[in-house]
Amino acid sequence: MTAETSTSAETPTSAETPTVPAGARERGPDYVHGYSEDEARRLGDQADTLAELLHAGTAFPAGSRVLEAGCGVGAQTVHLLAASPGVRLTAADLSARSLAQARARVAAQAPAADVVWHHGDLHRLPFPDGSFDHVFLCFVLEHLPDPAAGLAALRRVLRPGGTITVIEGDHGSVFFHPESRAARDTVDHLVRLQARAGGDGRLGRRLHPLLTAAGFDRVTVRPRTVYADDGRPALAEGFTRRTFVPMVEAVRAEALAAGLTTPEAFDRGIAELRRAAEPGGTFHYTFFKAVAVRP
Amino acid sequence: MTAETSTSAETPTSAETPTVPAGARERGPDYVHGYSEDEARRLGDQADTLAELLHAGTAFPAGSRVLEAGCGVGAQTVHLLAASPGVRLTAADLSARSLAQARARVAAQAPAADVVWHHGDLHRLPFPDGSFDHVFLCFVLEHLPDPAAGLAALRRVLRPGGTITVIEGDHGSVFFHPESRAARDTVDHLVRLQARAGGDGRLGRRLHPLLTAAGFDRVTVRPRTVYADDGRPALAEGFTRRTFVPMVEAVRAEALAAGLTTPEAFDRGIAELRRAAEPGGTFHYTFFKAVAVRP
Repeated sequence: MTAETSTSAETPTSAETPTVPAGARERGPDYVHGYSEDEARRLGDQADTLAELLHAGTAFPAGSRVLEAGCGVGAQTVHLLAASPGVRLTAADLSARSLAQARARVAAQAPAADVVWHHGDLHRLPFPDGSFDHVFLCFVLEHLPDPAAGLAALRRVLRPGGTITVIEGDHGSVFFHPESRAARDTVDHLVRLQARAGGDGRLGRRLHPLLTAAGFDRVTVRPRTVYADDGRPALAEGFTRRTFVPMVEAVRAEALAAGLTTPEAFDRGIAELRRAAEPGGTFHYTFFKAVAVRP
Repeated sequence: MTAETSTSAETPTSAETPTVPAGARERGPDYVHGYSEDEARRLGDQADTLAELLHAGTAFPAGSRVLEAGCGVGAQTVHLLAASPGVRLTAADLSARSLAQARARVAAQAPAADVVWHHGDLHRLPFPDGSFDHVFLCFVLEHLPDPAAGLAALRRVLRPGGTITVIEGDHGSVFFHPESRAARDTVDHLVRLQARAGGDGRLGRRLHPLLTAAGFDRVTVRPRTVYADDGRPALAEGFTRRTFVPMVEAVRAEALAAGLTTPEAFDRGIAELRRAAEPGGTFHYTFFKAVAVRP
């Protein structure tokens, strides 16, 4: 999701028939991870592996009006709906293509859910002030050129006393064994490319000051750590090998085009990163989850 | 604690009257943090701030024979004794001076505790095979040139079915806001100096493979994360400002002598690291706690 272009008409069908040419902005540098099918699968794998870690503690009362800002392909949406049956969800995204995928995913996994699909920009939502009891966003702020402005826009549509829940990663939290300079450099390429696209791959650590500056109250941020070793083979497989490594690997062409690295160096970094998921390897990553209240 | 020199006589009085000249090795490069009073205070602050985080889940039955290997100044010893009343503790350290401080600390905080003080090297403990039901060590392996050999020596004195509990930090887990290259470089100097002294400041991530290679069973490693922001001022003060920053700052002279940095660059790194504990700053550090069983 980005701040640059949008439609803001609340037309559920727009997910399938976007009224603005979507290709250019969807494949542009704005969303560093791209919109491929592999990426949609990766996001689904990631969400399923991490569902408990990320969603634990988030359950909205039945009947409450919830906005998911930047629902993307619906990878988190289905978990949100599973944990909060009976909510009245509005799921918004800038990408019509992603919305269509989200819609299909929810239809398959939560067919009875009450969801309005909104194709538009979270900075310019057409909803009146205080329209929602709760706002949820996951892996969205990291892609915004001005996350504080995004939070301020979301604060507007949240009623006083309502909560905002924000989940973000932080690629600066990555460390692994065996240690490898090449692997660290390769992860840094992703951070650098995301910065060039206007985002911040290390946003997690900034959640507390960002929410405070955006005027939220009772800001609580907690790390949610993924740590995988031989004692947790499902996590090494589901997160290290199938989520994190592919995310880094996906920027290969872009990193080469940007002259950040050579094919040999990049591929060596990926190979050494993969060793963290092999026997004797370990891998660490920290997500941050914030909850705050609109005064 | 190091592997290089030792006495192995189990003489409680040796803590006050060491029979070998201790100064040279105690102030040598082997123990990267040194043995100053400031350092003893830092270790005490650190242990008190982190006691719950690190010791939660560790409670040995009354009457069980417990070895604390590398008890140092007793910073963890008092918390171990508080959580496990009635244990028969043997507390060992290579430094007679540290042992004397540990002894005074325990006398003040746990006067009724049953503790035998052992002045000697954990690699050459004079105890028969299987002498202990449980072994505990905290911030020790990171200083050993061959941590696998240390673990093997401890395995010998543990009875079959007995547990080993190991707590280690990992300085590669440090990240903070505001981001600062100078601050990261300064933390890296500590890691580099510790490596030159034969240790590994990033050992935490290696606990699982090390314990597995040393022949322990049912190895379980979990991260224990310190995350401080404006919502947790006591942690920002107790850990970031009074524990972590002073630990890095303490290697200033050594880093300069080694030609790793300039006074200006080092001091700028420290100043920028301190910003993580100021309003709007955040700080992250991961400890690892392992429990394993001797087959």
